[in-house]
Amino acid sequence: MKKHNFYAGPAILPEEVKRRTSESLLEFAGMGLSVMEISHRSEQWVECMNNAFSLVEELLDIPKGYKVMFLTGGASSQFYMSAMNLLNESEVAGYINTGTWSAKSIKEAQLFGTVKEIGTSKNKNYSYVPRELDSDDVKYVHYTSNNTVFGTQFKELPNVDVPLIADMSSDIFSKNVDIKRHNLIYCGAQKNMGPAGVTLVIVKESALGQVKREIPTILDYRTHIDKGSMFNTPPVLPIYISMLTMQWVKDNGGVNAMKVRNEAKAHLLYSEIDRNDLFKGFVAEKDRSTMNACFGLLDDSKKDIFLEMSKEAGIVGINGHRSVGGFRASMYNAMEIESVEVLVNVMKEFSEKYG
Amino acid sequence: MKKHNFYAGPAILPEEVKRRTSESLLEFAGMGLSVMEISHRSEQWVECMNNAFSLVEELLDIPKGYKVMFLTGGASSQFYMSAMNLLNESEVAGYINTGTWSAKSIKEAQLFGTVKEIGTSKNKNYSYVPRELDSDDVKYVHYTSNNTVFGTQFKELPNVDVPLIADMSSDIFSKNVDIKRHNLIYCGAQKNMGPAGVTLVIVKESALGQVKREIPTILDYRTHIDKGSMFNTPPVLPIYISMLTMQWVKDNGGVNAMKVRNEAKAHLLYSEIDRNDLFKGFVAEKDRSTMNACFGLLDDSKKDIFLEMSKEAGIVGINGHRSVGGFRASMYNAMEIESVEVLVNVMKEFSEKYG
Repeated sequence: MKKHNFYAGPAILPEEVKRRTSESLLEFAGMGLSVMEISHRSEQWVECMNNAFSLVEELLDIPKGYKVMFLTGGASSQFYMSAMNLLNESEVAGYINTGTWSAKSIKEAQLFGTVKEIGTSKNKNYSYVPRELDSDDVKYVHYTSNNTVFGTQFKELPNVDVPLIADMSSDIFSKNVDIKRHNLIYCGAQKNMGPAGVTLVIVKESALGQVKREIPTILDYRTHIDKGSMFNTPPVLPIYISMLTMQWVKDNGGVNAMKVRNEAKAHLLYSEIDRNDLFKGFVAEKDRSTMNACFGLLDDSKKDIFLEMSKEAGIVGINGHRSVGGFRASMYNAMEIESVEVLVNVMKEFSEKYG
Repeated sequence: MKKHNFYAGPAILPEEVKRRTSESLLEFAGMGLSVMEISHRSEQWVECMNNAFSLVEELLDIPKGYKVMFLTGGASSQFYMSAMNLLNESEVAGYINTGTWSAKSIKEAQLFGTVKEIGTSKNKNYSYVPRELDSDDVKYVHYTSNNTVFGTQFKELPNVDVPLIADMSSDIFSKNVDIKRHNLIYCGAQKNMGPAGVTLVIVKESALGQVKREIPTILDYRTHIDKGSMFNTPPVLPIYISMLTMQWVKDNGGVNAMKVRNEAKAHLLYSEIDRNDLFKGFVAEKDRSTMNACFGLLDDSKKDIFLEMSKEAGIVGINGHRSVGGFRASMYNAMEIESVEVLVNVMKEFSEKYG
């Protein structure tokens, strides 16, 4: 039976990407070797790296003055690395707190300077995106563009006058982004870019070199810019698979086409959540994420029944995060609308039986 | 034509591991999904992580009081992380300098305390392992167990009275190790453990918690011990493939059998280097690495001819590192002795033609 993969991350990847990766693990570029057992200095691998850089630049329309890096350690490592590279001890950074991931980024940044929480939606369990922001006297404002746990998403950039830093782990490549408003963008790959094990970082080069502290060589963004992300051995397979996934995005119309596709899937699901008397959405309507829909039953005692019906339909990974409960349907780029239709049909069937 | 993969890293992996990975990328654990697109909290993935931990513990006979972690960032990240977690600013660490990688580890440790170089082979271009070591008043001694670039290897542990810290990136799992002499062992996976993208760390738990500095959460070893290396999303594929490779080591007799196998390959190659009048070894006989044999031609002008003949025989990746020149034949666990025989036959053929 076909499976419908709603996992929040690591998450669904295109069939084409899985097939090509599977082949390249046995035989790559006519070398008689696997893609994972060749030197990262070989011309065949250098070509892969170059393709990966070019695809990021093309898909996101990266302006001059910005540099792209492929690092490791996930977005969680960027929580401290961003402040370590961009914030002096005497300076203040503004953070918008939209839940779990923002809170973690605030905690780590505090080791390197002063953090001012300039907006939070904590009062309503992070069910909306704060809009009243006071960015006076802050060097930059950090925000989490899409909150995977609570299902909120910034549909417009935060309304502030200072440069932005964004954790885009769960909606990178899902739509167009105004890069120029940002000094730094980062994302772990394992939601909408590729498999776990690589972290994309995009930085405005002129924002670097302004902090006074000593930074270990490998934690200084400039090291990786200088060495084209090959200061040390890069995570070859995760980059390779991300490169194939970005190529798939390009072949399917780029990020603007992804946006249309993602909005169609989100519209289909949220419409059913709103129409169906047994379900409720958890998030303020205008802040609902196109990537992760968080919703639940009015009568939570029937949760297991719904999960069982979903499972029988081939649906995987819709149990909600423990801090929110209910269900979470993650609908990243690679998901076909047919999978959302299957979920909506189960919801309809459920309401016919138990409504 | 069959290829003989002598790359120094990323490097050869067992055929069985490549085949199983290729399959799991399309269909994993009967889930109807790829191993790289399932949640790291799923029971199927948690079982993989548990297997990976168990295999490290079993293969290396990890004693009580030691903890195993799977991190990212390569050995290069451990150069600073080891000192950040284990060395106070007022303390002195002893370092044995056997070339490139030791030098880099020294540079990063200096940010966190005092580094004393207690032995070096710099006077002879790192062609031997220093044995005169002065470890008075140092907290621990750091060494690089196998130097991939220069082809030297510690055949016995450094003769000092303090705890050891070892970078075992290029000979982990190639032989038995006396773990108890160490406070910390680390290695990037991409030579003898798996593909690039995961870093194995083994630490004596009682050595932790003694430094006074504030450490970002994700750079504190205790975070990863507490969370079973799942504080954030782990590099799923690199861990999975490392797990399969460790299983292959176990199925083929464990590290003691690997040692026998590796010594047979090394003996075959070094014997020919010594026998053949056209070649010379670069390293002192007793310090020659079983993993990376560095050697050259007495008449370097014929280097390209030898490389061409090797290529015609299916040999890949034997060009020496730019800082050493000549050739480097890396013969990690997964290499069959037949590949070394092919190389030796080319050397014989070369000497018959040009001797």
